[in-house]
Amino acid sequence: MVGDEVALALAHGRPLVALESTLIAHGLPRPRNLAVARELGAAVRAAGATPATIGVLDGKVVVGLDDDQLTRIALGEDVPKLSVRDIPFAVSTKSDGATTVASTAAIAHRVGIGVFATGGLGGVHRDAAYDESADLQLLGRTPITIVCAGVKSILDVPATLERLESLSVLVAGYRTDRFPGFYLADSGHQVPWTLDNPAQVAAAAAARDALGFGLGAIVLANPIPVDRQLDPVLHDRVLAEALAGAAAQGVTGKDITPYLLAYFHEATGGGSLEVNIDLVSRNATLAAQIAVAAAGTPA
Amino acid sequence: MVGDEVALALAHGRPLVALESTLIAHGLPRPRNLAVARELGAAVRAAGATPATIGVLDGKVVVGLDDDQLTRIALGEDVPKLSVRDIPFAVSTKSDGATTVASTAAIAHRVGIGVFATGGLGGVHRDAAYDESADLQLLGRTPITIVCAGVKSILDVPATLERLESLSVLVAGYRTDRFPGFYLADSGHQVPWTLDNPAQVAAAAAARDALGFGLGAIVLANPIPVDRQLDPVLHDRVLAEALAGAAAQGVTGKDITPYLLAYFHEATGGGSLEVNIDLVSRNATLAAQIAVAAAGTPA
Amino acid sequence: MVGDEVALALAHGRPLVALESTLIAHGLPRPRNLAVARELGAAVRAAGATPATIGVLDGKVVVGLDDDQLTRIALGEDVPKLSVRDIPFAVSTKSDGATTVASTAAIAHRVGIGVFATGGLGGVHRDAAYDESADLQLLGRTPITIVCAGVKSILDVPATLERLESLSVLVAGYRTDRFPGFYLADSGHQVPWTLDNPAQVAAAAAARDALGFGLGAIVLANPIPVDRQLDPVLHDRVLAEALAGAAAQGVTGKDITPYLLAYFHEATGGGSLEVNIDLVSRNATLAAQIAVAAAGTPA
Ligand SMILES: [Mn+2]
Ligand SMILES: [Mn+2]
Ligand SMILES: [Mn+2]
Repeated sequence: MVGDEVALALAHGRPLVALESTLIAHGLPRPRNLAVARELGAAVRAAGATPATIGVLDGKVVVGLDDDQLTRIALGEDVPKLSVRDIPFAVSTKSDGATTVASTAAIAHRVGIGVFATGGLGGVHRDAAYDESADLQLLGRTPITIVCAGVKSILDVPATLERLESLSVLVAGYRTDRFPGFYLADSGHQVPWTLDNPAQVAAAAAARDALGFGLGAIVLANPIPVDRQLDPVLHDRVLAEALAGAAAQGVTGKDITPYLLAYFHEATGGGSLEVNIDLVSRNATLAAQIAVAAAGTPA
Repeated sequence: MVGDEVALALAHGRPLVALESTLIAHGLPRPRNLAVARELGAAVRAAGATPATIGVLDGKVVVGLDDDQLTRIALGEDVPKLSVRDIPFAVSTKSDGATTVASTAAIAHRVGIGVFATGGLGGVHRDAAYDESADLQLLGRTPITIVCAGVKSILDVPATLERLESLSVLVAGYRTDRFPGFYLADSGHQVPWTLDNPAQVAAAAAARDALGFGLGAIVLANPIPVDRQLDPVLHDRVLAEALAGAAAQGVTGKDITPYLLAYFHEATGGGSLEVNIDLVSRNATLAAQIAVAAAGTPA
Repeated sequence: MVGDEVALALAHGRPLVALESTLIAHGLPRPRNLAVARELGAAVRAAGATPATIGVLDGKVVVGLDDDQLTRIALGEDVPKLSVRDIPFAVSTKSDGATTVASTAAIAHRVGIGVFATGGLGGVHRDAAYDESADLQLLGRTPITIVCAGVKSILDVPATLERLESLSVLVAGYRTDRFPGFYLADSGHQVPWTLDNPAQVAAAAAARDALGFGLGAIVLANPIPVDRQLDPVLHDRVLAEALAGAAAQGVTGKDITPYLLAYFHEATGGGSLEVNIDLVSRNATLAAQIAVAAAGTPA
């Protein structure tokens, strides 16, 4: 399951950061996605940790995709998105696939990686009763630190925050008391706790583990800085248009997220994509700093 | 807890199939229910496995009811339906009772039985906020393979599928990419994976267990063949009438499922009952084939 | 984590009752709250058990607050309410805090205390999609016996009962087949099981533990006697007024519970407070009797 470099880092207690592959396979246009995948690995290394990008190839879970494997996930045809419940089927049918937040978190925790960087969590869909990402329940029982920029604003952010509370997922803002809005620094909602440096995050995770209550993830919400966010007026207008467009054209179910994201991409002249890449890269760096702090290693 | 025949099969690693008793005590008219209970055991044996029908007698959980015990569950007065949360009270108050999907799955897993056959899962009720069967959460944390024909169409099938996804319950169709509609071969919804033979199902369960993510059940959805299903036009008409009748008469809560099933039974001239018995029997046979494959025993 | 008296009781297998501190810090007016906190401890002792009031001081979880510590929680400025997901942050930031039902249950179970007394559980909020207390999920996985008087009538009681069922939380009435309505003996809803003495409650908990299904809490619903309840006509009128007032003034989210409770307090001329204190005290006594029964110690 674990590649050589990751195995060595695990054996020596060196800092590691898990990265997901759905972002690469489905979240970004080609071939930019491959370049970003490499940049995320480089960002983790630059901050003193080992990147462990996770995917499934020929039915084997790979923790620490090498460049050939990363290329196959990034540029392959029809690489399916695998949530945690899909992994056993992908293994038993010897399929390839890209891992989501839920499956990446489950795999990372299984092999002993405690920090994971991504863009945004899955959440509760707007106007779609019962359509709630498997990420939320999985985070409720998987003790990992996940660095993200909140949940995409196309989802129902307050409902997602309520579910995280009901499921006892730990939520903290990084240097903010506001829950970020993915493309925006502030979603308009509060977070219950604020942490100000990587050592504080590592200490909270250590406290969780020592307490032994069976708690799950720390969602560390790391906002894009205000001066790098999408213009809020543009954001709100495009979001309203996108939601109205989806309703008018009867787009529902699994088609709605790609529709809304494509709408954002086009209507912002690619601006939403640049913010997305920026925030993921910043999350990778922060995740590495936390992993370094947790390993007791000077950065 | 475990009867002699089941204990021997467990000790020798022989294939076993769990069967529930709520179907017998509450799902079928008397005395046909007892005949069906015996037929299900015979179907499991004919496919090379040992049946383990589960129930509670005098506060003792019995795994592998013998014919006298089966008769008592089938023909007894006021045998209550026991979900998993009821079992401790039934034990401590020395009650009898019939086990549901949730309690049968919990008990089967506890004693080491990995495959379970039933008719339909519980699910989310239509137009009844928060009324969701305990089956769903329990399956989310109980690693067993449950062979069923979907969920009864009187429930909210798409909401139930969403909940199974949110709870990371594994779902696959048996030789189909459609989620079955209990009395019908196709509910109109898709399944994420298709498995084509018992060995593939056993391999998926083995992969789940080896991965160690704490995943729960595989729901293997086994449709009634199209040429044995209830006539779809009749089905849809009766369903609409039954739902309208329940609304008009103010039937709600725990009374609604028996009302709708009785309506189906009457309005189809007993046809729905025959389909129900047919599909449960087919599920018992398939479950036995999967147990045989998992045990590495030639059928 | 554990104070000396509690440690000794645990070591000798003597009966213990956990008590929460949110009730003290946030549920009752000062300085009456400190007096009630002391009375609850005395009620537990009078019934033959050791009280273990739980709170967090300087980032240390304390099980068995002494009188100085109790005073600090009761009279301190801005003692925050800590649900279970907040405890790791409170520990890592060395904060004080009062524990809720969820965090008290998690801590009590962790140190080996099996019985817990409180007033009312958290639940599902009225007219607030997704606003569900973390108590419910936590009780679904924490095997403890919690003695309460139901859930406050300002919440959505039937939705809360449905969630407890979906989450397989064990629910029984103490000497009643009705779910109590906090200020009232009867909420208008049924409970699935009735237990009639402390030994029966202890036996149900022992059966749950022996079965090994991974079940969570027993919610033992202990109604205020009819002759000590709030006048039902007054209750229903005040509840309707309070809900209408909150809607008219746009009170929502975290502000709604304090608003409704303050309204009750004022509109009943303090009567709701007296019933609240009465029922908590009765729950402490019953919890102690159950702990005594479970420990096999004569009361
Ligand atoms: Mn979904
Ligand atoms: Mn229900
Ligand atoms: Mn809430």
